[in-house]
Amino acid sequence: MLKRYLPILDWGARYGRETLGADLMAAVIVTIMLIPQSLAYAMLAGLPPEVGLYASIAPLLLYGVFGTSRALAVGPVAVVSLMTAAAVGQVAEVGTPEYYGAALALALLSGLMLVAMGVLKLGFLANFLSHPVVAGFITASGVIIAAGQLKHILGVKVAGESLPETVWGLVEAASSANLVTLAIGAGAAGFLYWARRRLKPLLVARGLAPRLADAVAKAGPVAAVAATTLLSWGLDLQSMGVAIVGDVPSGLPPISAPPLDLGLWTSLLGSALLISVIGFVESVSVAQTLAAKRRQRIHPDQELIGLGAANIGAAFTGGYPVTGGFARSVVNFDAGAETPAAGAFTAVGIALATLFLTPLLHFLPVATLAATIIVAVLSLVDFGSIRRTWVYSRSDALAAMATIGLTWVLGVEAGVIAGVAVSIGLHLWRTSQPHCAIVGQVPGTEHFRNVDRHNVVTVPDLVTLRVDESLWFPNARFLEDKLLDLVAGDCALRDIVLMCPAVNSIDASALESLEEINRRLKDAGVTLHLSEVKGPVMDRLKKTHFLDELTGRVFLTQFDAIRALRPEIAAATLRSPRCETAKAAE
Amino acid sequence: MLKRYLPILDWGARYGRETLGADLMAAVIVTIMLIPQSLAYAMLAGLPPEVGLYASIAPLLLYGVFGTSRALAVGPVAVVSLMTAAAVGQVAEVGTPEYYGAALALALLSGLMLVAMGVLKLGFLANFLSHPVVAGFITASGVIIAAGQLKHILGVKVAGESLPETVWGLVEAASSANLVTLAIGAGAAGFLYWARRRLKPLLVARGLAPRLADAVAKAGPVAAVAATTLLSWGLDLQSMGVAIVGDVPSGLPPISAPPLDLGLWTSLLGSALLISVIGFVESVSVAQTLAAKRRQRIHPDQELIGLGAANIGAAFTGGYPVTGGFARSVVNFDAGAETPAAGAFTAVGIALATLFLTPLLHFLPVATLAATIIVAVLSLVDFGSIRRTWVYSRSDALAAMATIGLTWVLGVEAGVIAGVAVSIGLHLWRTSQPHCAIVGQVPGTEHFRNVDRHNVVTVPDLVTLRVDESLWFPNARFLEDKLLDLVAGDCALRDIVLMCPAVNSIDASALESLEEINRRLKDAGVTLHLSEVKGPVMDRLKKTHFLDELTGRVFLTQFDAIRALRPEIAAATLRSPRCETAKAAE
Repeated sequence: MLKRYLPILDWGARYGRETLGADLMAAVIVTIMLIPQSLAYAMLAGLPPEVGLYASIAPLLLYGVFGTSRALAVGPVAVVSLMTAAAVGQVAEVGTPEYYGAALALALLSGLMLVAMGVLKLGFLANFLSHPVVAGFITASGVIIAAGQLKHILGVKVAGESLPETVWGLVEAASSANLVTLAIGAGAAGFLYWARRRLKPLLVARGLAPRLADAVAKAGPVAAVAATTLLSWGLDLQSMGVAIVGDVPSGLPPISAPPLDLGLWTSLLGSALLISVIGFVESVSVAQTLAAKRRQRIHPDQELIGLGAANIGAAFTGGYPVTGGFARSVVNFDAGAETPAAGAFTAVGIALATLFLTPLLHFLPVATLAATIIVAVLSLVDFGSIRRTWVYSRSDALAAMATIGLTWVLGVEAGVIAGVAVSIGLHLWRTSQPHCAIVGQVPGTEHFRNVDRHNVVTVPDLVTLRVDESLWFPNARFLEDKLLDLVAGDCALRDIVLMCPAVNSIDASALESLEEINRRLKDAGVTLHLSEVKGPVMDRLKKTHFLDELTGRVFLTQFDAIRALRPEIAAATLRSPRCETAKAAE
Repeated sequence: MLKRYLPILDWGARYGRETLGADLMAAVIVTIMLIPQSLAYAMLAGLPPEVGLYASIAPLLLYGVFGTSRALAVGPVAVVSLMTAAAVGQVAEVGTPEYYGAALALALLSGLMLVAMGVLKLGFLANFLSHPVVAGFITASGVIIAAGQLKHILGVKVAGESLPETVWGLVEAASSANLVTLAIGAGAAGFLYWARRRLKPLLVARGLAPRLADAVAKAGPVAAVAATTLLSWGLDLQSMGVAIVGDVPSGLPPISAPPLDLGLWTSLLGSALLISVIGFVESVSVAQTLAAKRRQRIHPDQELIGLGAANIGAAFTGGYPVTGGFARSVVNFDAGAETPAAGAFTAVGIALATLFLTPLLHFLPVATLAATIIVAVLSLVDFGSIRRTWVYSRSDALAAMATIGLTWVLGVEAGVIAGVAVSIGLHLWRTSQPHCAIVGQVPGTEHFRNVDRHNVVTVPDLVTLRVDESLWFPNARFLEDKLLDLVAGDCALRDIVLMCPAVNSIDASALESLEEINRRLKDAGVTLHLSEVKGPVMDRLKKTHFLDELTGRVFLTQFDAIRALRPEIAAATLRSPRCETAKAAE
């Protein structure tokens, strides 16, 4: 029981020297990667850079105690930072103490929700975000984040509520760009992009060990930060109009308390829920993928508690909402992290940075951080997956496109909600017009298939209709119309068998429709039978009068139905040789 | 084509003297019933009484031209009147010209929407209101309407936004009730209730022909109106504080034009849609029930056009939103109406009333109208149906109860929307945790059923899992967990067959899960097969790489799968004698 809620007791008991070495190695690499990212993502969230560092200490320690993934690297991430800026921007002005306070409150609320969802085992709620909606949202966010950072690269001021406004503002302001800033920003972005794509193969070709080459390549952002900071200090770029980070307070994270303001909490409630769910979905999917590679399993409900604890920790140590990051977790895994202790060692590394490195950040150009963000988020943008989804399922691709479009126009929160609504709406639309097939017996077998697709044997005055959907209110009337049309078009018809292997439930509206169908068929002199009704469906039908009123019978199998109703034909078809049954595509 | 949009051309061509007689007889009875109802429902909508009469003339004529039901009696109805009051009350003060203008605009908007839905064949949208939600909404509305009219019976002023407020207001005001008003109101209500329940059997027992007895009983409200008006005039009840209707302008309906105010139209849009859909659902269900009794059919999309024309007519002749009423339609049908001409004759009757009867209404006590409404709507209240639904389907009963509760607390519009949301939410909840069954072969057949319910034959190192649900994002992860748990619990397992007769679609999220399942089972040394995959599902899977990567095969039937994978067992089971397969209920 205790081990269920404190996974550290499990892996901690078996912790040895070898694991320590692996975890330490991974922690060093992740720390180097995390320092510039945490500064940059804090800026993206509209917060001072040191807040990003604070959010990378206590949350990592707490996730190490409560989390179940052995490779997940928790901390500030791009999408959650963007959502934080959107949510907090609605209740306070950027740069004010209220803004920072609201970010702390958001982290606390989100943490409490995650823990509550974990304790109540509500992790399944995350399933309602379909893959295409999540993929669309991440892609849309990546574009929004990159567009939003371009102003720092150009050295101009642009404010835009939505992507079209931001883009238009950039076009208008482009002529007044600060060329020195542009050179720094574009240079850093170009270097980072090159380092990401080409540096590792180059180093390997020069004879470096692949693992070491990877570590060096991952240090690209640190190199860019160091080089541009030196440049900025040496050439006094500030005097040329280049924005610099300025004073960053040094020292360990402060003990902070989110403001106890009920109105504020209420207005952040919806945003906190969205951030929690999106953060959890991103985090759990990377954690599951990495765990599967080593035949491990993670426990989604305990993951909720781990991430919740991390966010509560962030709220009380001057941070802001965090979650498991995709890129850093992959690096952590590749670098050999074996337990959540790697995260704790990373936290120690970041803590040392807050103590000793912050004075060095004074001259760091903001454009360098913007370049770091842009290069990092462009890897999130993946329009190709929508094209692939389109081939398989147009409705899924439509949901993804709706999510992207609405996220761009209406903002991140409306975008996610609209995406989920579109997914569910398209499902309801499909389910309201179910696929139906008239079926016949496959010669030589007791099996029945669609007459349009297979060479099957049918009976003249008996029709078997297979409905490929649960019967419930959106399609209740559809079935009524379908069956009555069948009867209206065929005077010789004496029996209808409704074959129900795909009917997984029948709700009260559909039951009323079935009663109505039975009554009307009776009036028309046609007997209604059912076949292959599932156990749970049958259990519930037995509680009603429907089975008493049903004019025909309920058969266990469709073959039983035909054997009972038209014995000669069923037996003859079963004896005939089995032939290749699929019809040629007409 | 012309007959499709103008059903009058169809039935009008065959109109004869006998039909005329039947229609005239029905029209007389409905007119007698409609006069007090139309006055009362206008009051319920917060409009002057003559508006109810106006809404009972042009709309009936227009429905006669465009409608397809031969028995539907169109005009003001209780639920739509309540919804009108709720919608219009949000944009204007009761009693102002703006209020009346907004009611006209609401009728026009609702009419245009109905016609558009009819032309675009969107009648199926009404299916998304499930029977339990509609039943719950009607019951809740009945209670709200009755409670709202009690103030007229008590002769007090009470304003309440929601049912609890109204009830509380009534309790507070009860001590200051006007006793004369209470006597009139309670007397009228008691008489009407008695006339509704007992008068017809009494008259029949006294030797009256049942049809005539019915007509006399239906005239109860007219008798109550006449008697209390005489009393009010003779005893000068107004001086004792009894509220009377006052001057009702006489003459045919005015030509009115709804205000052309875009802001007003925008704010009424949502309400107009709800009124249209609710009105259509109520109307079409009574029309279908009555049509079925005479083996006739109605055309839902043309019904939308008929009701839309009626509402547009109401907007331009001083009326307010109308639809087909349940009680009056049944009376119309029972009285022998054979064509929509009966409705046109009713309109003539009401027009005569506006010309000659309105001066007589001056002294009519408002309490009498309130009593008419209360007795009429109490027949809508049906809590028993929820109890019956509960036995069959708890989730449907929950949806009905949520609709009732939220309608009472939040109001009619929020109530309907919440009811639909709850219905869909409960479906999603159920679909996210699908029923799964491990199946085995029924001895003596090629049929496979649940091992827990039937005495079937299974194979030791092969498991067949039947998933009873379409695979889509809410349950994608569920299947992953289910299958991996199966493997984790059984070391001897070599093959898993996923039996898919109930899988009606596989969306992109579920496809990713299937790919993941296939990969992980491969790692565990287990082969994954599919059987009985439906044609449409197979068509789409063929567009992906899934079938190439699948470790096992796809079988047409489950029997084919077992015959190919474990031939001896399949053949032996097929040859064994068929036994009673259902297991005793444990």
